Amino acid sequence: MPANTKGDPVPLLKDLIACASVTPAQEGVLDRLETALAALGFAVTRLTFEGDGSYPVGNLFATRGSGGKRLLFAGHTDVVPPGNPDDWTSPPFVPTLRDGRLYGRGAADMKSGVAAFVAAVEAAIADGSADNGTIALAITNDEEADAINGTEKLMAWADAQGHRFDFAIVGEPSATATVGDSIKIGRRGSLNGQIAVTGAQGHVAYPDKANNPLPVVAAIVTALSATPIDEGTEHFPRSNLEVTSIDVGNQTTNVIPARGTIRFNIRFNDLWTPETLGAWIAERIASVDAHGCQVEFSVVGRPSNSFLSPLGGGVEALGAVIEAATGSRPQLSTAGGTSDARFLARYCPVVEFGLPGPSMHKADENVLVRDVEELSVLYARFISAWFGSGKV
Amino acid sequence: MPANTKGDPVPLLKDLIACASVTPAQEGVLDRLETALAALGFAVTRLTFEGDGSYPVGNLFATRGSGGKRLLFAGHTDVVPPGNPDDWTSPPFVPTLRDGRLYGRGAADMKSGVAAFVAAVEAAIADGSADNGTIALAITNDEEADAINGTEKLMAWADAQGHRFDFAIVGEPSATATVGDSIKIGRRGSLNGQIAVTGAQGHVAYPDKANNPLPVVAAIVTALSATPIDEGTEHFPRSNLEVTSIDVGNQTTNVIPARGTIRFNIRFNDLWTPETLGAWIAERIASVDAHGCQVEFSVVGRPSNSFLSPLGGGVEALGAVIEAATGSRPQLSTAGGTSDARFLARYCPVVEFGLPGPSMHKADENVLVRDVEELSVLYARFISAWFGSGKV
Repeated sequence: MPANTKGDPVPLLKDLIACASVTPAQEGVLDRLETALAALGFAVTRLTFEGDGSYPVGNLFATRGSGGKRLLFAGHTDVVPPGNPDDWTSPPFVPTLRDGRLYGRGAADMKSGVAAFVAAVEAAIADGSADNGTIALAITNDEEADAINGTEKLMAWADAQGHRFDFAIVGEPSATATVGDSIKIGRRGSLNGQIAVTGAQGHVAYPDKANNPLPVVAAIVTALSATPIDEGTEHFPRSNLEVTSIDVGNQTTNVIPARGTIRFNIRFNDLWTPETLGAWIAERIASVDAHGCQVEFSVVGRPSNSFLSPLGGGVEALGAVIEAATGSRPQLSTAGGTSDARFLARYCPVVEFGLPGPSMHKADENVLVRDVEELSVLYARFISAWFGSGKV
Repeated sequence: MPANTKGDPVPLLKDLIACASVTPAQEGVLDRLETALAALGFAVTRLTFEGDGSYPVGNLFATRGSGGKRLLFAGHTDVVPPGNPDDWTSPPFVPTLRDGRLYGRGAADMKSGVAAFVAAVEAAIADGSADNGTIALAITNDEEADAINGTEKLMAWADAQGHRFDFAIVGEPSATATVGDSIKIGRRGSLNGQIAVTGAQGHVAYPDKANNPLPVVAAIVTALSATPIDEGTEHFPRSNLEVTSIDVGNQTTNVIPARGTIRFNIRFNDLWTPETLGAWIAERIASVDAHGCQVEFSVVGRPSNSFLSPLGGGVEALGAVIEAATGSRPQLSTAGGTSDARFLARYCPVVEFGLPGPSMHKADENVLVRDVEELSVLYARFISAWFGSGKV
């Protein structure tokens, strides 16, 4: 596949990597991006969100054109810490080319995705297709840490401003092995729960005067773990519960403890909402004989909903573009952890489509330069195909 | 019941209470006891044992006479801390008489038992019965805390010196409500165990790449808790296992932990030894599908054996003496926690026979003076009846 004649992603990618934007520090990363977007005719708004128990975060919203189909690209410019610099062959914030690879923190996750999309827009402007629709970018500088003052608030702001979108691409690393082999069309939801079981403390020599909660704790763990939540759906694997901790903290060998606590996480498919799962959990708890113990279930933090984007429209168009370029339809995947895509799914169909990311979060994070170029070409061809120009 | 004409336990009891002998401090308590015993013709040996991870402890061994039946009295002169002195009506180490009760730390547990026995020997000397046998005392100043350099080592030393005993009385509070209503003829054994279950850590979103040990932890807790160990024996209740803690300590909601740990205690009757129980535990663990986890069982600390003294001999004679005095046979009990009696049971039949102890370890610890006098009379009558004089 030839590189874009117009639109080389590498210079911008190098500039972004050179900013040590470890969450939530910007170190100029959004300034550099704003400059690139403004040069392409984007109206750029910078927004700092703060509060809700987290640090202030810089965000960027950019929009270009009006009318036609409305495409949103979302991503982040923050990176995880580099760890021990001695583990890196070249300094983590000095973009370094070696053997066709560009090294640096954020090279894979996901400054390359951002740079590839900006270069794609440049190419689509050059071939005229960009003007057939509306292109927006929602970029946050906190996806890697709290993610409280980032994409979720940015999307709510954009929605309140009247921005609407027909399709969104999140540029996170999504490929399994090669560019275009897989796109993510949904994500499981995630719910963290806690169950406290309270009995009555006492001396181990006089169990009749106590009520040990721990056999009840064990029975509840078994009731939660041994029962399949569902059998999976067409695009999702089975929902899954993992007990992540059981804690009592009783160091005294001759004391029956008063209480034990179970913590668990459920990753759930599109059959469930946090509310229906809460009822399932309550039913599993009720199936256990509490032996007079008090059992309290609570949701910890805020659950995230599952989502599945409709398979026509942008998903179909993207699949066709990828097939035309690579010879194969991408796998439509819903695997993996949560991502900011869940915040976009409330507003429009969304896919994650980006590079392979085997080195993300590791020392010597890197991308193959030709992969970044190929991703940029695919983004550009999608704009052209979906907006309808046919020139690419 | 009349008080002994010779042998008033109260003066010695007051002197012992006045010594603030919080484990392992002596504050003269063994000196005072030695003086009393020497005055009655005892050969007294003072022994300090130390090492094995604990502090040095003062101990006293005394013996009087030779030939005939050999009676051992065992007990301790150390006391638990008084707690907040403001919670006491009178100072904890100032023996104070109020309304027929003597108040002070150790009044019940168990300086009264020691004083009652010494006074009983004085009475038995006066009536001539003491000379029909051999009387020994094994007194430690650490029963309440580590109990590592106390009775166990003292008995091993006495045995090595060639001392043999036909029957032993431990003067711990043993009565349920009134003096003589219950004597303890045995104790359950105690074993502390730990089971570590190790799987493979991983991310909750990728459970196939991990192996969660917590369902196995739960299954083992159920296997240990839900199965009766035995049905009890003639003199013992059922052996009982209590899980005392389950700990993982995983604060991260998206991580499947590598390991969970179960701690438990078993109080077991005379059907079991720590060795046979270890085999029972291993069998219960083996009944659980470990799902590829590594399961490691270990005994924590040193288990104590159960014991049951033979019901004839001293036990029968003591029961008869009590019945003659109170009109009722004492209940033969094996209830309660462990005591130093377990260290004597290796050498001779042993009972615990002392006062009611409702105030032990509490503020305003006290005894009814007439209870101490009554206990002393019963000790004296036992010496006379068992040694064979008939004078009492």
